[in-house]
Amino acid sequence: MLHIAITAGGTIEDIDEVRKITNTSTGRMGVELCEALIHFMESAQPNQAYTIHYLTTQTALKPPKHPNIKVYYVTDTESVLTCIQTLFKVVSIQFFIHCMAISDFTTRAIVPLEELATEIVESLKKAPVDLWQTLIEEKLRNPEAAIAKNKKVSSQSDLLISLQRTPKVISQIKKLNPDVLLVGFKLLKNVDESELIQVACDLAIQNNCDLVLANDLQTVQEGTHVGLLIKNQTVTGRYEGKKAIAKAIIEEMFKIVQNTHAIQKRSGNV
Amino acid sequence: MLHIAITAGGTIEDIDEVRKITNTSTGRMGVELCEALIHFMESAQPNQAYTIHYLTTQTALKPPKHPNIKVYYVTDTESVLTCIQTLFKVVSIQFFIHCMAISDFTTRAIVPLEELATEIVESLKKAPVDLWQTLIEEKLRNPEAAIAKNKKVSSQSDLLISLQRTPKVISQIKKLNPDVLLVGFKLLKNVDESELIQVACDLAIQNNCDLVLANDLQTVQEGTHVGLLIKNQTVTGRYEGKKAIAKAIIEEMFKIVQNTHAIQKRSGNV
Repeated sequence: MLHIAITAGGTIEDIDEVRKITNTSTGRMGVELCEALIHFMESAQPNQAYTIHYLTTQTALKPPKHPNIKVYYVTDTESVLTCIQTLFKVVSIQFFIHCMAISDFTTRAIVPLEELATEIVESLKKAPVDLWQTLIEEKLRNPEAAIAKNKKVSSQSDLLISLQRTPKVISQIKKLNPDVLLVGFKLLKNVDESELIQVACDLAIQNNCDLVLANDLQTVQEGTHVGLLIKNQTVTGRYEGKKAIAKAIIEEMFKIVQNTHAIQKRSGNV
Repeated sequence: MLHIAITAGGTIEDIDEVRKITNTSTGRMGVELCEALIHFMESAQPNQAYTIHYLTTQTALKPPKHPNIKVYYVTDTESVLTCIQTLFKVVSIQFFIHCMAISDFTTRAIVPLEELATEIVESLKKAPVDLWQTLIEEKLRNPEAAIAKNKKVSSQSDLLISLQRTPKVISQIKKLNPDVLLVGFKLLKNVDESELIQVACDLAIQNNCDLVLANDLQTVQEGTHVGLLIKNQTVTGRYEGKKAIAKAIIEEMFKIVQNTHAIQKRSGNV
């Protein structure tokens, strides 16, 4: 049985009980990846049993209803991590396509602006100047006047939200299973193509990605959606539109596995 | 021609080009209101021509496709205000049901935490202690190190988002047309019913609402959805479920108009 995991859509981080931080991701790329994968399996490997483990949110576009797709609903970054860790324990994932837009930040604290200012004033009054930077940073991170997260914040005062970085989900994948084939995604906004490629290559090296799809939000917003597929620090293809991008990722993924398999056979490892 | 405006769903405030602040509103209440209204018009006033002007977001549940519904797509609070102002200029709105969850806050600035701390330290060094509060508040509101809003914020440092209050949309409605029948909504979280009623009555007085639907998020999350309909500072009905709430609002709305009409007739004003 072949197990393929796909993450899609955008995470939802709570600010309080009512407000959320989300992002522009619709989940459409994940749906296209499912369709491309099903099409590929039916035509290229019709006798191979497989399951697509599809991690997404309730608000993202739904994948097609298909007997080979299992959908897992997640919300924030923490829930994505938990879901992935559980999945890797239960089944042996061979392919992991991580196209979900994971929030880089989650809410650490939310605090009324004037109260925070007062807190800073009071803490500095007794402190030597060379401690100010540390004291202020500490207050900005963890203000005493922070409003409890299970309340709906009142709208009577200006507010500050203190954000903390979330753990990088993509960095966990190869730690959970070094043999998984990992596809990462890199989205930047309005940068030179050379910069986009460089950042995507860095992502690949840092997280041991076998493939990275690099794209620029500018092209998404303009209705074209140009994707560069990067393998071994090199652009192996340029595709326009989510359908073409999805098809290329799936085909390239299986090509890598076949090549590895062929090499292992020649060297007697299989 | 009868013109009814309904706002529904939740606003979307940009943090940067990718991240957004949204809320839990799905837009379902707006859809129920449309259906209840269409049903009411067909059965009680079959010969009355009418248009429902429906303001919502692209991500909210869509109202039923119906020849009498015009849909206007909005995003943030600012766009809701602009849309409403335009609408009131073009047509004579008689009923306004404002059930959209409008963000109380929008992003004023987003700033790396350590840089903001440094800015505060530098500004305080030269200032007398009695100016500290004002200086810190100013830095928290408008830091020089703020990241431009049309960039995707890098995830390398902890961040602070400075929020400012948005203008209250509901307070504008009766200013645009004092004769409109205005229905407001008040959602609180896990409060005593007496407090909920008090806050809803305050909302009605401040904004000249003819009706207010008061509800507690707790009941929404628990799957019951209890709504209290408030008229003239009094609870006139208690309803369970969005369908029953929507039906009650529509019927009560037309009852008020008929009564007003009858009174005006008796006093010779019509």
